[in-house]
Amino acid sequence: MTDTKIFNGLNTVQMTETVAAIKNQPQIGAFQFRAKNKWIDGGLNRSEIQGFYGAGQEDTSRAKPFVYTNSEPPLLLGGNEAANAGEFLLHALAGCITTTFVLHATARGIRVDEVSTSLEGDVDLQGLLDLDKSVSPGFEAIRVKMNVKADCSDEQLDELLAFAGEHSPVTQTIRRPVPVRLERVTSKSESA
Amino acid sequence: MTDTKIFNGLNTVQMTETVAAIKNQPQIGAFQFRAKNKWIDGGLNRSEIQGFYGAGQEDTSRAKPFVYTNSEPPLLLGGNEAANAGEFLLHALAGCITTTFVLHATARGIRVDEVSTSLEGDVDLQGLLDLDKSVSPGFEAIRVKMNVKADCSDEQLDELLAFAGEHSPVTQTIRRPVPVRLERVTSKSESA
Repeated sequence: MTDTKIFNGLNTVQMTETVAAIKNQPQIGAFQFRAKNKWIDGGLNRSEIQGFYGAGQEDTSRAKPFVYTNSEPPLLLGGNEAANAGEFLLHALAGCITTTFVLHATARGIRVDEVSTSLEGDVDLQGLLDLDKSVSPGFEAIRVKMNVKADCSDEQLDELLAFAGEHSPVTQTIRRPVPVRLERVTSKSESA
Repeated sequence: MTDTKIFNGLNTVQMTETVAAIKNQPQIGAFQFRAKNKWIDGGLNRSEIQGFYGAGQEDTSRAKPFVYTNSEPPLLLGGNEAANAGEFLLHALAGCITTTFVLHATARGIRVDEVSTSLEGDVDLQGLLDLDKSVSPGFEAIRVKMNVKADCSDEQLDELLAFAGEHSPVTQTIRRPVPVRLERVTSKSESA
């Protein structure tokens, strides 16, 4: 690690302090992320993302919510207003593996010059449509091709890439079974 | 099913034809979704989403790529330029469960008046930071609260909601273990 405060775009002083704080008080590592979504019509719906809980308190750093739309292409009965949910999952995966890679490279003092990824996910609509019970509705497999330039050997890059996969929250949410509990609620107002 | 062509915002004629086509030729249900992503700096990166393969051919309906940014809040060393990857995963989940619900309601002739969802996902950063090997880096659990108004009984709603969860591609990608294969490539040009 150099004594530069910003390295790979990350504040290494804050990073070291955050890691030390969670080491000392493991409970502040507990985060809760959130989203609210409203159906518009057909395959069109929209999410708002703003607050989250982390480091022992509610985060209030976002003055306004981020707004993202899900849509479908005409082939899947939509109007191409936005990417679809499966594609957003790939966007989330790409971002998480990249940030986890850069974070751990930074912790090891490795300068990262370039990261670009290309993702493919296979899904068989027979599952979604309940046409074949032996077909999972989810992605069957996802492949991530990652082009990385950094000031370390290819062996270190391969090790770091595998390490990033093993520690990336979204990668591990996909690789491991995670419970998704669905509950029907009755809201008193118009919004959930 | 009424004889209206558009029901719940979906073209029911096209829907019925698509289901029949996949029943007759199961191989046209095989889809491949894609994303490309480039690291910008720190926790900031950006995806482009455009083409996909489905119904036996490359889709060319999108003249331009959709562009989405991943960022982090200041607490996680970022500048709040956009939601983070974990939040995008919740956005994808909300969209997929909603669209799957509306699709199967439509197939059963149930009119949907309102769907709004509220999602929470718990993640312990000790996993990401490699501080405790017994902690998964991924989401520990995700809860989806769904407020639905439709012209059917509460019992039908509960059954349809559970059915949507069992057939939603993103829900099943999270609930079941899905392989994510990471491969390092060397690109000859600047982009992946």
